[in-house]
Amino acid sequence: MTLERVHASFDAQSMMTTLGAEIIHLDDGVCHIAAPILPGSLQQQGFGHAALTFAIGDSAAGYAALTKMPATQEVMTAEIKINLIAPAAGDRLVAEGRVEKPGRRLIVVTADVFAEQGAARKKIALLQGTMIPVDL
Amino acid sequence: MTLERVHASFDAQSMMTTLGAEIIHLDDGVCHIAAPILPGSLQQQGFGHAALTFAIGDSAAGYAALTKMPATQEVMTAEIKINLIAPAAGDRLVAEGRVEKPGRRLIVVTADVFAEQGAARKKIALLQGTMIPVDL
Amino acid sequence: MTLERVHASFDAQSMMTTLGAEIIHLDDGVCHIAAPILPGSLQQQGFGHAALTFAIGDSAAGYAALTKMPATQEVMTAEIKINLIAPAAGDRLVAEGRVEKPGRRLIVVTADVFAEQGAARKKIALLQGTMIPVDL
Amino acid sequence: MTLERVHASFDAQSMMTTLGAEIIHLDDGVCHIAAPILPGSLQQQGFGHAALTFAIGDSAAGYAALTKMPATQEVMTAEIKINLIAPAAGDRLVAEGRVEKPGRRLIVVTADVFAEQGAARKKIALLQGTMIPVDL
Repeated sequence: MTLERVHASFDAQSMMTTLGAEIIHLDDGVCHIAAPILPGSLQQQGFGHAALTFAIGDSAAGYAALTKMPATQEVMTAEIKINLIAPAAGDRLVAEGRVEKPGRRLIVVTADVFAEQGAARKKIALLQGTMIPVDL
Repeated sequence: MTLERVHASFDAQSMMTTLGAEIIHLDDGVCHIAAPILPGSLQQQGFGHAALTFAIGDSAAGYAALTKMPATQEVMTAEIKINLIAPAAGDRLVAEGRVEKPGRRLIVVTADVFAEQGAARKKIALLQGTMIPVDL
Repeated sequence: MTLERVHASFDAQSMMTTLGAEIIHLDDGVCHIAAPILPGSLQQQGFGHAALTFAIGDSAAGYAALTKMPATQEVMTAEIKINLIAPAAGDRLVAEGRVEKPGRRLIVVTADVFAEQGAARKKIALLQGTMIPVDL
Repeated sequence: MTLERVHASFDAQSMMTTLGAEIIHLDDGVCHIAAPILPGSLQQQGFGHAALTFAIGDSAAGYAALTKMPATQEVMTAEIKINLIAPAAGDRLVAEGRVEKPGRRLIVVTADVFAEQGAARKKIALLQGTMIPVDL
């Protein structure tokens, strides 16, 4: 596992820059991504958009998977499901992705997304999905 | 069904503006949303980010559901799953959302997302999910 | 595609026998499976159990995928999601599975499940999932 | 929470009897269900059928949700997704269901399913879904 390549891949995702997202924790099989709820990331009621929650949840899960890959492979999301359980209200969102089952052909991943307001933290979404290796 | 309120809700989603998305077709139980693949919406290989595909697929499904709601209610995504079947490559993406099963408590929806390049069109994702009514 | 191997695989699934399920239609990328709502397949209110609906929906999707495989490969369900939209009430259930996107590494499938009562037919579930090839 | 009603509901599910399933642990927001891999519950390669894994995973999640309901309500599965990560091989399967987010309108649940062979235990599936209350 080389964590540098995870950061390099993340930095190459212009969507992450658009959303203001950053990797705040990275380890073997684990990736945490934080993003502010920017004025340009809202849904119609003023909460963070589900696409923001999805974006960092999916990416945290994907980069957790990437830590398990050899240097010759990347990963792509084959499928992922999100259950949204509370509005994305607060200062920022934090997604915690992890590998549930590494594999040569499929990597099963999950992620939780939290909304943080000052010291308060509330889980707002759960994701469960599948990443597939892609040769570079 | 008043289609005006769908447009009003859509226009209030700053995320849709950030992504350059617009409603291109709207009817009873149906909503199509298009978005260009903007320079700020990319993943690390230069294709459209999965979060863009998700954003317009989820929104097309949600606004299809909203056409079925009384004027006193909105909808929110309770859960949705996306299968990504091809890279988001091309000029623009188009999501076609539809209501599979309207209901008082749950609205089951699906959406297909296509990548368009000139006259060519390729399906890149399928979504299946659940919207729930929310009182205004 | 040899449809005989689909039937041979189906016949080897003792669960299908337990549930009284049978293949009623099979073609390239398509498989329909019917099952009665047996006295031993019920949930607590006397309707067909969600596991019955899942069993034939998943199998119809899987055997639709198998029609696309070379003779040296089988398929397995990697993941599948079911939305249940009405109770499984009636004489029998029919699942209609189809291949949405064939692939060398992943086959994306969907299925609808219907409850039939005499001449009446009602959709009770939608499934969307991923099959993976397995070498024999 | 009255655990008796959970057992009464479970006992009324003839599918659980057909599959030989039983509740082995029940607490507030938690339900564990075990089932042998019966000769009548197999897929074509002789492993436990995905429908068996689904049946006990979905039921464990549903009964975990039922422990949170008032005596005037039951629950039904609105939707659930399963990722299958290893073959169902061994003496018996055990599903551990839990409530992730209770709610008046939706209860978000997850479950893990394990295959046990003697003292060995292997996770074979993850489920994530939504239960809805139904008035009795």
